[in-house]
Amino acid sequence: MSEAIDRYVTNNEKRFMEELKELLRIPSISTSPEHNADTHRAAEYCVTKLQAAGLENVELIETERHPLVYADWLHAPGKPTVLCYGHFDVQPPDPLELWETPPFEPTERNGNLYARGSADDKGQMYSQIKALEALRDVYGKLPVNVKVLLEGEEEVGGISVAEYVEKNPEKLKADVALVSDTEMYAAGLPTLNIGLRGLVYMEIESRGPARDLHSGLYGGAAPNAVFGLVELLSKAKDADGHILIPGIYDDVEAPSAEEKASWEQLPFDETEYLKHEVGATSLTGEPGYSVFERTWARPTLEVHGIAGGFVGNGAKTVIPAKAVAKVSIRLVPKQDPAKIVEAVRAFVAANTPKGVQMEVRVLSSGPGLMVNPDHHAIQVAAKAFSDIFGKETVFIRSGGSIPIVGDFAKYLGIPTILMGFGLPDDGLHSPNEKYCIRNYFDGIRTLAHFFEEYGK
Amino acid sequence: MSEAIDRYVTNNEKRFMEELKELLRIPSISTSPEHNADTHRAAEYCVTKLQAAGLENVELIETERHPLVYADWLHAPGKPTVLCYGHFDVQPPDPLELWETPPFEPTERNGNLYARGSADDKGQMYSQIKALEALRDVYGKLPVNVKVLLEGEEEVGGISVAEYVEKNPEKLKADVALVSDTEMYAAGLPTLNIGLRGLVYMEIESRGPARDLHSGLYGGAAPNAVFGLVELLSKAKDADGHILIPGIYDDVEAPSAEEKASWEQLPFDETEYLKHEVGATSLTGEPGYSVFERTWARPTLEVHGIAGGFVGNGAKTVIPAKAVAKVSIRLVPKQDPAKIVEAVRAFVAANTPKGVQMEVRVLSSGPGLMVNPDHHAIQVAAKAFSDIFGKETVFIRSGGSIPIVGDFAKYLGIPTILMGFGLPDDGLHSPNEKYCIRNYFDGIRTLAHFFEEYGK
Repeated sequence: MSEAIDRYVTNNEKRFMEELKELLRIPSISTSPEHNADTHRAAEYCVTKLQAAGLENVELIETERHPLVYADWLHAPGKPTVLCYGHFDVQPPDPLELWETPPFEPTERNGNLYARGSADDKGQMYSQIKALEALRDVYGKLPVNVKVLLEGEEEVGGISVAEYVEKNPEKLKADVALVSDTEMYAAGLPTLNIGLRGLVYMEIESRGPARDLHSGLYGGAAPNAVFGLVELLSKAKDADGHILIPGIYDDVEAPSAEEKASWEQLPFDETEYLKHEVGATSLTGEPGYSVFERTWARPTLEVHGIAGGFVGNGAKTVIPAKAVAKVSIRLVPKQDPAKIVEAVRAFVAANTPKGVQMEVRVLSSGPGLMVNPDHHAIQVAAKAFSDIFGKETVFIRSGGSIPIVGDFAKYLGIPTILMGFGLPDDGLHSPNEKYCIRNYFDGIRTLAHFFEEYGK
Repeated sequence: MSEAIDRYVTNNEKRFMEELKELLRIPSISTSPEHNADTHRAAEYCVTKLQAAGLENVELIETERHPLVYADWLHAPGKPTVLCYGHFDVQPPDPLELWETPPFEPTERNGNLYARGSADDKGQMYSQIKALEALRDVYGKLPVNVKVLLEGEEEVGGISVAEYVEKNPEKLKADVALVSDTEMYAAGLPTLNIGLRGLVYMEIESRGPARDLHSGLYGGAAPNAVFGLVELLSKAKDADGHILIPGIYDDVEAPSAEEKASWEQLPFDETEYLKHEVGATSLTGEPGYSVFERTWARPTLEVHGIAGGFVGNGAKTVIPAKAVAKVSIRLVPKQDPAKIVEAVRAFVAANTPKGVQMEVRVLSSGPGLMVNPDHHAIQVAAKAFSDIFGKETVFIRSGGSIPIVGDFAKYLGIPTILMGFGLPDDGLHSPNEKYCIRNYFDGIRTLAHFFEEYGK
């Protein structure tokens, strides 16, 4: 890396931190309509900072839901074009009572910055903006052409950005996309993510009696909406985590022997993982598959939440009329989300208990995908990452979903570099989400170095 | 019935209605600590009205939770003593949005009085007070000795009244107890309830990972507290409603052939019951048993409510750390609640899914029981009921639980007359609970007539 960039980052650490904190104070919870103005405010903040970094044609693009932000700098003729992507919306912070410090009051503690969105994705997204600022400030120009596209709906399905990408392939034309919204395999270990799972996210609603009934008077004869939902859900997955919905595994491909072998080289201590990351009495999952295979290369079904009947203090003896569960299936590459939705609908229809009615509502869906690790941009990114962190870059997959990567592949025909600086214990989507402060600054260094190397 | 009493009730209908409405306006929700003052206020209201009715030794008895109310009138030497019981607390009104008129603004509509507690049990309890008032006013005395014991914890397990009965058998000594907290089999059909189910009410809490986890990153390897609870609950009962917990049916006795035959004489239209009472697509329950057997003479298991994970708007992709369900088992006579609790604990221990921890908390429990229909007081009550309503009294059971009846049997050695004026469509514990206004006034007439007849 150039010493000039290194020095620039070092000299500006304090300001970079204050600016990120200001962004983190905005509760841009995209799933909550009452926070729509906050999400908009986060977009405006990004506009200001992109302008300050010297980006041009900075636009706040209104949509039917949350705004998009676009910017570019296209004065490097003959050089490749990088499409930078990030999101400024965050997950809801509940359960609030489990946060040690408030989710929207960013707090430094033990080398980490605690706040909702610190790692996912404001901290990482903002690293890209700061890397561009550093290059512009130090050299007066960028080493490659850059387009920036930020969204505020990533946590709620990203419909607007997907539509925008589909409708503006010329405007967004680039050689490669660069997304910093993933994690490093371990602290200090440079990591490129070359595989993502897809997702079908659904609500399943169960209706039994017309109203809540007295369980003494009707218990034994009336259907129970909560129990009906419990019966249905229990049939969707066995005790080992194997999904029982017919057809779910039809298009699942096993990872190559080579890829599996590389995973076996990754440092991994199952006992530590159980104790410090999961924190349960034991792991679960399909027998015969490693934790990597279970979380990266196998579809999984989870119930994210369930509600129905009386759950206040004390005892209320009702047979509930209604219940709802949030359920998702993570998909691996080659699985078709539409086909999975059909399989779920057929399963629900075939397994709806007597006396109960079920409705399936699909909230979002997107496929899983892989990028080719031999692609030039990926190789440059791997080297840049190694240079800054001083270790060989590893190639892994993630069990999570980043639908935009699929859109870039589908509508722009470009691969995506998933160069992320999160850590496994960052607590994404959980209380006390944090971002490693060292990774924030070294992330800026790494991204700037990648732009320089890619422009050579 | 004496014409004087009939006239007295007729002349005072308007005032009786206003007084009941005043009581119904007090949101004495015993399960909600924030309503403790209201529950106390309901007790004070009863004290005032018992005094006004000419009862003596009227006491408001403070307890560790909600107060009791005691009163007596013991100037009928040689006559039997009746222990009148009722409760002035009510169930929570939620879901509030389903009420057509607010639960604590009693509203007359189509011959009914709509309010939380109108039927269960304020309206019925207040009928007893008004019957005593009518007799005192018309005759200057009561035809029998009377003790009144009212409580404010019936909907939360009735611990205080149970302790009070246990500790004060001399004070409460009586020949028979009279409880108006049940329903008539059908509108206009005088009904005495001679069997009640017992209840074991529990909370089952499930804990998986130490915190909510990202379902993409950990899905496939981490246990899910909601799914663990779903798995456990699904094993507790089969699709037909048969409980699968070992030992549950050990002490269950079938009703006598005679009793079953009498049930077959009751007017019952399963289609109407399904359509107008249950309002589901079909009934459920154990094959080979009639609806009466299923709801009156068989133990049943219900999940009253369930909560865990994210259930807000939109999509949040967590693996929940915690989930809780409210679960009860209704018991028939001869089943021992303590034995049932042990069976549930053993079942939960044996069926806790891998990686999940379960805790069972018992919130309340009490046995089911039967009273002898040939008892003199029951026979007098049956005749009094028939006299006022002009039809033969039928003897039924109820699937509900009134724990105090067991306490009266156990500690005072007396049977209980379950003479209730509710109707099957009153919506106990549900939104839009109502009490038939005609039954309110005829209930007062019936109770007064019973006291007169029992004093002969």
